[in-house]
Amino acid sequence: MEDVKIITVKESLLADNDRDAQTLRETLRSRGTCLLNLMSAPGSGKTSTLLALQQAFGGRLRWGVMEADIDSAVDAQTMQAAGVPSVQLHTGGMCHLDADMTRQGIAALSLENAELIVLENVGNLVCPAEFDTGAAINMTILSVPEGDDKPVKYPLMYETCDILVVNKIDTLPIFDFDKDRVEQYARARNPKIEIFYISAKTGEGVQALADVLVQKVKEWNA
Amino acid sequence: MEDVKIITVKESLLADNDRDAQTLRETLRSRGTCLLNLMSAPGSGKTSTLLALQQAFGGRLRWGVMEADIDSAVDAQTMQAAGVPSVQLHTGGMCHLDADMTRQGIAALSLENAELIVLENVGNLVCPAEFDTGAAINMTILSVPEGDDKPVKYPLMYETCDILVVNKIDTLPIFDFDKDRVEQYARARNPKIEIFYISAKTGEGVQALADVLVQKVKEWNA
Repeated sequence: MEDVKIITVKESLLADNDRDAQTLRETLRSRGTCLLNLMSAPGSGKTSTLLALQQAFGGRLRWGVMEADIDSAVDAQTMQAAGVPSVQLHTGGMCHLDADMTRQGIAALSLENAELIVLENVGNLVCPAEFDTGAAINMTILSVPEGDDKPVKYPLMYETCDILVVNKIDTLPIFDFDKDRVEQYARARNPKIEIFYISAKTGEGVQALADVLVQKVKEWNA
Repeated sequence: MEDVKIITVKESLLADNDRDAQTLRETLRSRGTCLLNLMSAPGSGKTSTLLALQQAFGGRLRWGVMEADIDSAVDAQTMQAAGVPSVQLHTGGMCHLDADMTRQGIAALSLENAELIVLENVGNLVCPAEFDTGAAINMTILSVPEGDDKPVKYPLMYETCDILVVNKIDTLPIFDFDKDRVEQYARARNPKIEIFYISAKTGEGVQALADVLVQKVKEWNA
């Protein structure tokens, strides 16, 4: 397997995470770096979506990835093997990342002139939504097998996110998943949420998502 | 939809959750009630597994269910409609239940002479594993679409659980999921874990799981 840097990020002692996150966001903007916070339940396909995006970006972005997990380094190894500079963040059991942990990760990634840094958060639909990481874009993935009722049960995740990616659409024929229903539920939580349908496995829909992300990153860094 | 009782459970002020959980476990045992704490990621099929078990129990157990969610009452309505006494617990944004919240739920369920009470925990592979609820049996569900690497990434969940139920096995042909690998990963975390393969949708494997649960509940209450 690829040799990747693994760092253990420590929980912040700062009382005001929101202010800290705002500071980080402004620092990154002044450097021309857009931070994307990618959240989902375990197994929704965060890493495979990033792999598919690497291909669809087609070299249009200098980017890197921070893979947060409680344990293991498999995701950072996977991304690194695909040619994306990556670092594995171990949270020491923590269920989310805050702004200061994110800052530690960015320092460890040490990627000069990155236009986009993706934080792949811990697989969890609850806690990560409560902590601003300093991201310019918050994106969540919902995979078809999880069911279309998730926006009803995990409201804050959907209120927080700018983009909802519905993944594994190649399995729509075999699961009871209604696109109209998920859009209705998600927009009830957040009328402005942008929704994309993809299959990271077959590549369907990935190009459209990649194009929008490239545009958003360029706009943020302009 | 079914009319169900919805209660908001409050976080405990007790410092020592472990001791409180042990007290609850002993109280329940003296009453002849076995508490099963059911945990999984969002969308693994906790509620559909309980529906399938209701049929497979075939009236052998007096049982009830507490459905914990941050929001919505859909799960308790579903169980109640299937003839299982149920109560919906709202956690007010909390990502897990502790022993005192569980006690509040049992009081609200108000089921005399229950042999089995199932706590369907918040869909989350991280935080619920950190809090002893007073359960006699801890059980987790991993669905095939989530992938076989979850025991590597979420160690505490697998260390904590007595039973692993691999659900949605009807989708094994279309996902990259290796039964040998998941068993190896799960047993590396917990050599004693008992593993069952089911499809709550087709019913495959559910009878064997139901029979073992009935036996465990009867033994606990003996």
